[in-house]
Amino acid sequence: MIGLSSYAGVMESLINSAEEQQPSSPLDKSWSNKQESSKNQKPGVGGFVLVHAGAGYHSESKAKEYKHVCKRACQRAVDRLKAGALAVEAVAAALVELEDSPFTNAGMGSNLNLSGQIECDASIMDGKSLHYGAVGAISGIKNPVLVANRLLNEAQKGKLSAGRIPPCFLVGRGAHDWAVSHGIPPCPSEKMATKFSLSAYKRNKRKMELAEKMDTGHNQTKKRRQSSENENGSGCLDTVGAVVVDLEGNVAAAVSSGGLAMKHPGRVGQAAHYGCGCWAENACNMNPYSTAVSTSGSPFLASEDRVLGGVIVLRCCRCVEAQPSQNIQGILVEFLWSHTTESMCVGYMSAQDSKAKTHISRLPPGTVPGQSLAIEGGVCRLMSVAE
Amino acid sequence: MIGLSSYAGVMESLINSAEEQQPSSPLDKSWSNKQESSKNQKPGVGGFVLVHAGAGYHSESKAKEYKHVCKRACQRAVDRLKAGALAVEAVAAALVELEDSPFTNAGMGSNLNLSGQIECDASIMDGKSLHYGAVGAISGIKNPVLVANRLLNEAQKGKLSAGRIPPCFLVGRGAHDWAVSHGIPPCPSEKMATKFSLSAYKRNKRKMELAEKMDTGHNQTKKRRQSSENENGSGCLDTVGAVVVDLEGNVAAAVSSGGLAMKHPGRVGQAAHYGCGCWAENACNMNPYSTAVSTSGSPFLASEDRVLGGVIVLRCCRCVEAQPSQNIQGILVEFLWSHTTESMCVGYMSAQDSKAKTHISRLPPGTVPGQSLAIEGGVCRLMSVAE
Repeated sequence: MIGLSSYAGVMESLINSAEEQQPSSPLDKSWSNKQESSKNQKPGVGGFVLVHAGAGYHSESKAKEYKHVCKRACQRAVDRLKAGALAVEAVAAALVELEDSPFTNAGMGSNLNLSGQIECDASIMDGKSLHYGAVGAISGIKNPVLVANRLLNEAQKGKLSAGRIPPCFLVGRGAHDWAVSHGIPPCPSEKMATKFSLSAYKRNKRKMELAEKMDTGHNQTKKRRQSSENENGSGCLDTVGAVVVDLEGNVAAAVSSGGLAMKHPGRVGQAAHYGCGCWAENACNMNPYSTAVSTSGSPFLASEDRVLGGVIVLRCCRCVEAQPSQNIQGILVEFLWSHTTESMCVGYMSAQDSKAKTHISRLPPGTVPGQSLAIEGGVCRLMSVAE
Repeated sequence: MIGLSSYAGVMESLINSAEEQQPSSPLDKSWSNKQESSKNQKPGVGGFVLVHAGAGYHSESKAKEYKHVCKRACQRAVDRLKAGALAVEAVAAALVELEDSPFTNAGMGSNLNLSGQIECDASIMDGKSLHYGAVGAISGIKNPVLVANRLLNEAQKGKLSAGRIPPCFLVGRGAHDWAVSHGIPPCPSEKMATKFSLSAYKRNKRKMELAEKMDTGHNQTKKRRQSSENENGSGCLDTVGAVVVDLEGNVAAAVSSGGLAMKHPGRVGQAAHYGCGCWAENACNMNPYSTAVSTSGSPFLASEDRVLGGVIVLRCCRCVEAQPSQNIQGILVEFLWSHTTESMCVGYMSAQDSKAKTHISRLPPGTVPGQSLAIEGGVCRLMSVAE
């Protein structure tokens, strides 16, 4: 897990690298077009979204699927932003699309645990209120992020009867029951498993039984230390996430994950951990930058020799234009993605774009996952015309 | 919840305040005695422990009980340290004693949730390995900290069969089953409830029903915002915690809580949150200080107008003596407790002390909980004689 304090440093260095890359950013080049298109824009309607469909390994054969889901997720967020939604609603909409894809390890098609069940983690944070909602090891709910979002919304309404503090993090059966009692329909577990997740489960189960058979008679502890992480199976780090800024400059972040394949029932990963899976914080008097981060990665970095993870980051501030005008306000959005995994699939879109840009980022050829880092980013300027 | 990055700043300012208080520290005065007693000490056996039995409200009538349990917890940790245990084992031993008391809101005698069940949170961190173990919303286990500690120990053994990463955070039923399968005996829930917790549950239930009856016909949302936190019942913040340093300079921290009274089933509080409930980090090349922290507090600080919480902190470094000797090594331990709640019961003890010192810290008379802060601390020097 990555603690909150680590983010600040990581983010600072990542953003500095991204700034060096600005001249070559595709969004930067299209800046002049955007300035022109901004005159048709309604005041206070717009924003920017960056999503990822997992840091891990994306085969060429499935690249198209991953790009498609990222594109749809961006579109969903932008649709909400155009309808006047705040960042936190838009980020939840993007996550729903990412969870609904059977190809991502989140919601539908999540990894199965040791007992062959799906248990999901998700969290969401609103940079405006600093409210946070999370669920861990939740079963039988199609979109875990909607439960996290509902927890956030309910917490914003204030105390419960008799002064009770509303929950912000629910797990297991209690989380499921809370969701259902708040109108989120249950979904039979068998509908959430896919042909792919079921066959991966059977494969992993066989692999485990074989490994345990081989261990018999040996020094088990020693064996355990030596076992290679390559055995860990395919796609087990495919957490999905999104970060959004709306035209008011509010930021939000969300993350959702089916967790590790063959995990122990009840295991909660970093996607549900406060300050680990996502973070969003609006600019304030002491800090001119709004920041939103969503991570994906090794669940226990301290003990890993190879740190496998990915992150998407968005940082923005009010900007002054070359030809300032009283009724045009701008937000400068810097964004980036970075990963130490073999690949990471991302998509991004401004409300002014006609469609999302998607990209499968890969480590440079010949480099080793966990030992090198890919980092890319860009900038985007959002314009709003005051009436 | 308090994110990790907040700690650094809080700790820095708290420790600076504590340093100003050093001359009046009771432990400081006994320093000369300790130097003398150190010649009888075995090399590498010793250390220091600081515990708390809850930040909340401690009535005078129960003060004795709380002090007693703190004393016993310190003694348990020191016994382990004297037997050559590392900090992390000693901190777990202290927590077991705190959990076993029916007067604390942890383990035995925990608050009951909305369904009348006990669900506990606990976490532990080893500053040497940075390993971490946590359980959330666990039922039917007498000592949740022992499950957290077992998770930490199992993770230190390395990967599971087929390269699977061992869990560090388990919740609900899965956590219970993992504990039992690892030899931790289940405990019937009815044995964990006390006369006090059952009558508090009945009282809270009546209060809730009354509040909800009164709400009927009104604007509920508005009502909810206005309800006072004084209604929240007695002792609901009584998380317990401990921080330890051993004579090798390793630090460890742990925290355990029954959570809020009448919480929703499945609710996990900050005691189980990575980077929120506890933190421990040994000195390294880049930082000469080892630090251990354990917190207790409002579950959602962002939205609270009155932040109710408490913290115990321990910071230590190798120290150079006035008359340095090759075979005497010293560790300077700075420690403090701080709270914004009405009171906090603490105990501390060095392995060289014959018994623990205990104290119920209270806010200055006339000050308002959540609006002012009590802070006290001291220093202690640990000596080890190399053979």
